[in-house]
Amino acid sequence: MYKRSIVLTVLLGLGILVSAQSMPAKPAPPQAGVNPVVEKYINDNEQKHVQELMDFVSIPCISSLPSHAADMTKAAQWLQTKLQSIGMDSVQVMQTDGNPVVFAQWNNAKGKPTVLLYGHYDVQPVQEALWTSAPFTPKLENGRIYGRGASDDKGSALTGIWAVEAMLKKIGKLPVNVKFLFEGEEETGSAHLGAFVAAHKDLLQADAAYSADAFQKSDTQGAMIMSVKGASTMEFSLKTANRDLHSGVFGGRLPNAAVAMANIVASLHTPDGKVAVPGFYDKVTPMTDEEKHMAATVAYDEQKELTAYGATAFTGEKGYTSQERAWYRPTLEICGMWSGYTADEGFLNIVPASAHCRIMCRLVTNQDPIEIMALIKKHINSQLPEGVSIAWKDIGGFGIAAAKAPGNTAAFKAAVAVLTQLYGTAPVLMGTGGSNAATSVLDKELGLPPYSFGFLQEDENFHSHNEFMRVSDLQKGQLAYCMLLNYIGNQKTK
Amino acid sequence: MYKRSIVLTVLLGLGILVSAQSMPAKPAPPQAGVNPVVEKYINDNEQKHVQELMDFVSIPCISSLPSHAADMTKAAQWLQTKLQSIGMDSVQVMQTDGNPVVFAQWNNAKGKPTVLLYGHYDVQPVQEALWTSAPFTPKLENGRIYGRGASDDKGSALTGIWAVEAMLKKIGKLPVNVKFLFEGEEETGSAHLGAFVAAHKDLLQADAAYSADAFQKSDTQGAMIMSVKGASTMEFSLKTANRDLHSGVFGGRLPNAAVAMANIVASLHTPDGKVAVPGFYDKVTPMTDEEKHMAATVAYDEQKELTAYGATAFTGEKGYTSQERAWYRPTLEICGMWSGYTADEGFLNIVPASAHCRIMCRLVTNQDPIEIMALIKKHINSQLPEGVSIAWKDIGGFGIAAAKAPGNTAAFKAAVAVLTQLYGTAPVLMGTGGSNAATSVLDKELGLPPYSFGFLQEDENFHSHNEFMRVSDLQKGQLAYCMLLNYIGNQKTK
Repeated sequence: MYKRSIVLTVLLGLGILVSAQSMPAKPAPPQAGVNPVVEKYINDNEQKHVQELMDFVSIPCISSLPSHAADMTKAAQWLQTKLQSIGMDSVQVMQTDGNPVVFAQWNNAKGKPTVLLYGHYDVQPVQEALWTSAPFTPKLENGRIYGRGASDDKGSALTGIWAVEAMLKKIGKLPVNVKFLFEGEEETGSAHLGAFVAAHKDLLQADAAYSADAFQKSDTQGAMIMSVKGASTMEFSLKTANRDLHSGVFGGRLPNAAVAMANIVASLHTPDGKVAVPGFYDKVTPMTDEEKHMAATVAYDEQKELTAYGATAFTGEKGYTSQERAWYRPTLEICGMWSGYTADEGFLNIVPASAHCRIMCRLVTNQDPIEIMALIKKHINSQLPEGVSIAWKDIGGFGIAAAKAPGNTAAFKAAVAVLTQLYGTAPVLMGTGGSNAATSVLDKELGLPPYSFGFLQEDENFHSHNEFMRVSDLQKGQLAYCMLLNYIGNQKTK
Repeated sequence: MYKRSIVLTVLLGLGILVSAQSMPAKPAPPQAGVNPVVEKYINDNEQKHVQELMDFVSIPCISSLPSHAADMTKAAQWLQTKLQSIGMDSVQVMQTDGNPVVFAQWNNAKGKPTVLLYGHYDVQPVQEALWTSAPFTPKLENGRIYGRGASDDKGSALTGIWAVEAMLKKIGKLPVNVKFLFEGEEETGSAHLGAFVAAHKDLLQADAAYSADAFQKSDTQGAMIMSVKGASTMEFSLKTANRDLHSGVFGGRLPNAAVAMANIVASLHTPDGKVAVPGFYDKVTPMTDEEKHMAATVAYDEQKELTAYGATAFTGEKGYTSQERAWYRPTLEICGMWSGYTADEGFLNIVPASAHCRIMCRLVTNQDPIEIMALIKKHINSQLPEGVSIAWKDIGGFGIAAAKAPGNTAAFKAAVAVLTQLYGTAPVLMGTGGSNAATSVLDKELGLPPYSFGFLQEDENFHSHNEFMRVSDLQKGQLAYCMLLNYIGNQKTK
């Protein structure tokens, strides 16, 4: 059972310990209900929602690929059109130094709190050969919508929009003021979100914030993420000559870029699984007792996880459990490495003259992602063998700070109450190995850590191939958002 | 100057020391001349030869790509048609367990020696993105024919055929009996040449053998290769899970296939540049004094070589010169290595579940390529970290034995005499880091080591991109072959 949550651990996160056990399992407050007319409307429009999501998913807005710049604009405009059509005000596609942000608000609930709903429209790249259907030609099959972004985060983001649409259409008003904020750079580290939010504090100010970039623990239990990791990504190339060289003529006497890369990558970890970059752990905050407790008590079947992913052994830093490593220890992974002749078939008898590597670190509280990148760069530069030169690629500002979110706010308690009512059981409180810049950005700039309020599930292959979203969760998500807005509308949340 | 020969060092090779100095620089024997009518014919048909080579080059007969099987047959048939058209007898495309062999003979020089001319019609793969023109749409520019195989070995192979064509057309006969043997697996290690030759000893028997898969030292000096290296190629994949995994959720706790690969590749060499595979050097034959002398005396400008290839340092086994390493020390190189997200742009936040590696060794006399592969396999299998499985790919029998060719035969002396006459100076005698199975196969099965008699040049980018052949060398090669056949026709060579 726990396997799910450790895998779902991808997206948004909150913080500070409120154990699942200590959460009062109070009966559902009446104010969190859904108007039956609204509920009927949501149910009657399932087919329309599926069609809309498929339409949205068909836009290949991959934020890490410069060649898809036009698709980013197209996706932002798609959201703009949708938000205008449901009666939101001030709908704007707002420029940043990167991909645009889409903003909308509805400010007619005089005297009521304002709720900021965050999501992102950009998606991960695809390795199309691995997909069983075209990633940007979505298809509906067995109650699932397949396509890149169907789950992360387009499907989840639309649930909040549809909930507002249903209420405005059937009741003509909302129980609270609502602001939508959709960014287009989440998958590349939200390089420009911080500057954007800092520049628009008044526009974005609210009493509570929630993120659709989040997940359920399972069909029958919600999840609240208490911490997210930070992240740094880097890419570099080695060069040994101006062309690949004949392996007979030059082998054994001019440097091989693949061999140099292997030695450098091998130097990044110690034999006992620690990151070997000097200074990497210097500023790491140790796990708190509460975090240790959380990692130890959230149920987790290691063998089941290994089986599910076809793996046979855990690896990594000694002295910590697998769950502790995932949630509370910093990591350094190679996401891509290539050199020489890499075609599926054939053989080219060369000494490769270049080699390439992509690195991603996941960081914990107090580690500065920029400082960590500098340490890694320094270490790798110091490892260069004779005859090997290095070039670092600027891949945009993927430097996300880790964040914890407070478990004692009214906004947090509202989400817990609604999820408890929705599932009939309290949500699980947990950490995550995933990263999301919005957590630290909205907390820092607005004092509004966005609490997880999304309806993805772990097996939906986000970031991998054959990503999908369950239609049933699209419907569940809409009801949940209606409940949340109603709940907050009946109490002061800040 | 020497830079050229070390680079050309690719193809065919002979053996046993006959130093360039000890070669009698005797005046050109009159019997090596070319009939002026034949020479005029060769000169008059330059344009026709260029067109024929371009036609031949346009067949993408890449032997290491199974998807090009039909092209192999097409190239063999092209040769068959050509050989029939010039009046050769018994022209046959002969099946092997791999790509076909093309055979032809002309046996009408009663009482004269028989000369076996070897070449290959298969070519290396291409990394098309690196080419400035399409590799299989040859073009003529500034006296050079660009295209894959133009130099290695289609251009060189055609010179012998055209020489025979010119003599038959203008004189109606040849001064010796001639057999042509063209294989289609040289670039993949000639896996089936040994069995083919063993099964057709009578058909192939001759008094001397020469290989067109060879090169000049420069425009103004020939080269005779006294030894060729052996070769082993291997390919393997590592697997850690059944799919790539999210780097946040699984990073630091499930094995990373790229990291495992880096560690394995790093384990293949010692810090002082030796191959670290146990047993690798056990059967290595040390350099002879003559070989040491040859490596020391053949002129070689290290700095010029580094500059030409954009390299900044030599590498490899300590205790040997760069030339000694190239010609007489066994090597292990990585020709390709890849794992995870390797697209040119973008970033995928994954823990790669698989990694792949291509290895090529160049071996010296007495090392058994099959035994070496077993030693490498054993070493790598012993290095597998926990949670990592390995699969070895059968990439066909690229296991070539190193060979030396005797420098005291009449066939050798004939080649030296003709090259001396052709250039006005004796050919340089040298080793090579390159491999060619025909050397050991023809020596072992027929007692006929094929002596190098080809007209490539080092800068023609064989195996690399933008391969080309000089038109002037096509013409020079034809004259040289006419001279060689005339020379042998006037003396007993075996």
